[in-house]
Amino acid sequence: MFKAQLQSFNDLSEGQHGATRVKALRQLLKKQHLGGFIVPRSDEHQGEYVPPSDERLAWISGFTGSAGVAVVLADKAAILVDGRYTGQSAVQTNGAVYQQVPIHEISLSEWLAENAPTGSHIGYDPALHTPGEIERLTKKLASHGIPLTAVAANPVDAIWSDRPAPPLAPVFLHPKKFAGETAIAKITSVQDKLARERLDALVVSDPHAVAWLFNIRGGDVTFTPLPLCYALVSQVGKPSLFIDGRKLTASVRAALAKLCTIHEPAALQAEMARLAPGKSIRLDHASAGIRLKNWVEAAGGIADIGADPIALMKARKNAVEQEGARAAHLRDGAALTRFLCWFDIHAASGTLTEIDAVGALEHFRRQNRQLKGLSFPSISGANAHAALPHYRVSETTNAPIEPGVFLIDSGAQYADGTTDVTRTIAIGKPAREIRERNTLVLKGMIAISLAVFPKGTSGAQLDSFARAALWQAGMDFDHGTGHGIGSYLSVHEGPHRISKLGTTPLEPGMIVSNEPGYYKPGAYGIRIENLVLVQPLEIEGAERTMYGFETLTLAPIDRRLIVKSLLTKGERDWMDAYHKRVRKALTPLLDIETANWLKSVTTPL
Amino acid sequence: MFKAQLQSFNDLSEGQHGATRVKALRQLLKKQHLGGFIVPRSDEHQGEYVPPSDERLAWISGFTGSAGVAVVLADKAAILVDGRYTGQSAVQTNGAVYQQVPIHEISLSEWLAENAPTGSHIGYDPALHTPGEIERLTKKLASHGIPLTAVAANPVDAIWSDRPAPPLAPVFLHPKKFAGETAIAKITSVQDKLARERLDALVVSDPHAVAWLFNIRGGDVTFTPLPLCYALVSQVGKPSLFIDGRKLTASVRAALAKLCTIHEPAALQAEMARLAPGKSIRLDHASAGIRLKNWVEAAGGIADIGADPIALMKARKNAVEQEGARAAHLRDGAALTRFLCWFDIHAASGTLTEIDAVGALEHFRRQNRQLKGLSFPSISGANAHAALPHYRVSETTNAPIEPGVFLIDSGAQYADGTTDVTRTIAIGKPAREIRERNTLVLKGMIAISLAVFPKGTSGAQLDSFARAALWQAGMDFDHGTGHGIGSYLSVHEGPHRISKLGTTPLEPGMIVSNEPGYYKPGAYGIRIENLVLVQPLEIEGAERTMYGFETLTLAPIDRRLIVKSLLTKGERDWMDAYHKRVRKALTPLLDIETANWLKSVTTPL
Repeated sequence: MFKAQLQSFNDLSEGQHGATRVKALRQLLKKQHLGGFIVPRSDEHQGEYVPPSDERLAWISGFTGSAGVAVVLADKAAILVDGRYTGQSAVQTNGAVYQQVPIHEISLSEWLAENAPTGSHIGYDPALHTPGEIERLTKKLASHGIPLTAVAANPVDAIWSDRPAPPLAPVFLHPKKFAGETAIAKITSVQDKLARERLDALVVSDPHAVAWLFNIRGGDVTFTPLPLCYALVSQVGKPSLFIDGRKLTASVRAALAKLCTIHEPAALQAEMARLAPGKSIRLDHASAGIRLKNWVEAAGGIADIGADPIALMKARKNAVEQEGARAAHLRDGAALTRFLCWFDIHAASGTLTEIDAVGALEHFRRQNRQLKGLSFPSISGANAHAALPHYRVSETTNAPIEPGVFLIDSGAQYADGTTDVTRTIAIGKPAREIRERNTLVLKGMIAISLAVFPKGTSGAQLDSFARAALWQAGMDFDHGTGHGIGSYLSVHEGPHRISKLGTTPLEPGMIVSNEPGYYKPGAYGIRIENLVLVQPLEIEGAERTMYGFETLTLAPIDRRLIVKSLLTKGERDWMDAYHKRVRKALTPLLDIETANWLKSVTTPL
Repeated sequence: MFKAQLQSFNDLSEGQHGATRVKALRQLLKKQHLGGFIVPRSDEHQGEYVPPSDERLAWISGFTGSAGVAVVLADKAAILVDGRYTGQSAVQTNGAVYQQVPIHEISLSEWLAENAPTGSHIGYDPALHTPGEIERLTKKLASHGIPLTAVAANPVDAIWSDRPAPPLAPVFLHPKKFAGETAIAKITSVQDKLARERLDALVVSDPHAVAWLFNIRGGDVTFTPLPLCYALVSQVGKPSLFIDGRKLTASVRAALAKLCTIHEPAALQAEMARLAPGKSIRLDHASAGIRLKNWVEAAGGIADIGADPIALMKARKNAVEQEGARAAHLRDGAALTRFLCWFDIHAASGTLTEIDAVGALEHFRRQNRQLKGLSFPSISGANAHAALPHYRVSETTNAPIEPGVFLIDSGAQYADGTTDVTRTIAIGKPAREIRERNTLVLKGMIAISLAVFPKGTSGAQLDSFARAALWQAGMDFDHGTGHGIGSYLSVHEGPHRISKLGTTPLEPGMIVSNEPGYYKPGAYGIRIENLVLVQPLEIEGAERTMYGFETLTLAPIDRRLIVKSLLTKGERDWMDAYHKRVRKALTPLLDIETANWLKSVTTPL
């Protein structure tokens, strides 16, 4: 069997140490006259993936999920997690120490208001929370007489004796043949934007944005090729890059030195203070810790909290990045199709497990020399596990692939693009109900694929198209329809998305996922996901500038799960045309066995 | 010909006095050391319709439109209006005095930043602007060194020698047989809500909300039967009503005295000050002037700016109000159908004008003894005038009804409900293009009519359903799909609506308009509007609580403008079923001639 190397299946919890670690923290808090301390699952960039040195939440509580927050008071502690993680949190953390709190029912402020004694000062690390977060919390707790206090040093770090060192993965250049634009040109665009918005400077606190701006990539966190770092861009002059110098080879340093002044991260505060007096400085509302705001204001500057303009520039892929995305999807589609063919042959035996599937898919992707890594841990779920949209298989949960459906959501990183694709596969002869609901999901996916919309339309205005067929049947799914995707960067990238909250207008060049689903808890789950690229459309007689989607993902969709009579003619035509395109594009890249299999599974409905 | 009595066709502009009035204002501003003054088109309740005594914008500028703002500086003045009113403003105001500013291109703050000298104090009346408005403006002007100053008395009033007296229309009770709930029960609901939200009191600054709360109606403004007044509701005890006592007959006063303490409006500040110290007081973000916030804070209270909870309670019509709405629509549909039949016979002659149509429609409505008034001035537009979504016919614009299309958007007030309906009618044999585009609009209207959506869905999530067919053809319309409607109250009622900005979830009992359109400037316009009522839906096998719409409006839709081949089977079925229902419901209420006509125009497609 193929063995996965790029993702782990361990639940690396240290929950057994919960009691001693919380005890040590309480002793320290008492010395500092703090009534409690908040431990979020974030690093100083509010990133999705954080390095081991920032896994404070996992260290103090044992909970290893990707979102959550712990609060330790003098005599109580709680772990607050969302619906995805309530089960995992209960297993991983010590119930004698931590109260389990579902954060969608009781918010952090509500829990603190009910449990912290009036007058107790609750500490927080100002590097790990945004100004918006702290302001909302402060406001809500004010009426309960519970003040928040920023700590000078994180008390968890003080007691975390074997804390890993921060990562030092080497930085490498992302060449123009993939980036499509020089860093010099990007810096000029940002400076022009600052001038138009009457901003004196921008602190780039999101490492994805720094990576885009300087055309660099790195390896400080898993799944996203970014170097942890900051930048400071003034309206005129050379920007500054704040990065641990040990990550820079001489040649990379030399290339970067032409673009910017290189500083150690510790110099950030001093450089901001030097620049700040009387100046208006944009801080990114999503990634900047409140300490950055404090630094600007202490130095007499005006902290303008808002969107980092780089987010939107990065989201609009240029022609080279678009062409790269097409090439990456062709390559990745061939690997996925080889997997699907292999899986179709071997799944029937009933001996495969979810982990086997991850290993095999990785094997087919790794056969391609251009693979740089996965873009996230593959979600590999059979039946009831497929009903968990964020399921992550581990040695303890690993289930055999049995008759019903199997869902695999995966993606890869290539220098020319990032992929993300989900297919739901029939195992045996799935029940009519499953096929009907899969068809409703497919109708939603096709509705987005065929959407035509005027310039200025946001993802929020399209989201319902993906749901209408399910709604008519009294069903829905509880996640957004799609998220933005980076170019050899994060698989989850803003600011645009297809969701009722996605108010950013979709613009040509933006890539977004199209992934409606249906989940029957305890039974089965369905999701069909393609990535799509916003493109201008030429429509005869059009009175407005109209946009639509070009589908990037190339892989067959399981026809055995489609009830043809539920599709309109337009939907059937889309399905057949898509399969024809997939077959034509991928066949030259496939072995004969896979090519024959692809031919058979892509015949018209 | 029938003569309209309920709406005027005059452009009552006094623009010719613009120069002398602005001169007088400037003299006064100079005495008060103000560099300028802002004159909005609002009264102290930020209402859609304002009494003559509050038509300051019309008085100072001559502009009589329903939205706009004038700014008078020492040496410059401007009138800022949106796209609907640029033409009207240019005609009505003195171009030598007022610079014409399209507000969608240059905002008030931008115009002030560019035109007011640095350091000049710009005055505003704190009764006429919300806190949010003033805070945004203050923030934007701060960096330009232009402070805003609240005036103690409006300088326009000081120079307006023949200012009309405030209206004193008698207040009357809105009985439980129409309201469906006693005022006592409503007051208790509001007080419960205040307790749940930990608010000590609520200032009800929206007269629609006061009318709902106390089950009263009045006649202080046109088209909406409301008395201008305020209320103050504490978490416990009797609320206070602030209203000019001359509007209350002895019997109404006696009835109200059981519910509340009655004060003159001048007592509002003192009563708020008496209550405020240490108390948290909700002020409605949409209707409360910033002076109310100032009063609360000056008295040591906490002004909690947010939604008036009454808005949502009022929007959810109870069973009696729903039944009333059905009865009102049946009655109104019969009148409209009599008009449509009459119009069909007489329009062919080519001698009718837009004003004739308004008069005739009003005539048929007035034949019904239960008519209380119109809910807004009828929009009656032939061809190019129909392309202006907010067209209001006047003696100067009145056009003959010629071959093409004619659009009539109108509504009525009845004690049991408020109506609003638009029909677009073929005159002669309209071109294929018109019929095709009318069919695209109809497809959008049917898509909303047939929408099924889970509990929690907002109008923003449905809005695109009304546009999808137009989008596919490269077209769109530039207004929301629908607005809420009151029960014998305002024809425009929040907080819900069908628009990309309508984030309030739709709940059973809410009434909303369903009115997509298409407008070809200078040529023709199309709009088809029904009112719909949110209802729970029973769907077999549904996994969620699902809602849909019951159509309230009953009137034929012109089949001569429908290209049948562009409709799906589902859409044709809806159309035929709707016409069958209209015919069945209205026939018993019609004369034989109209009944026969209705039969002929509602046969299946």
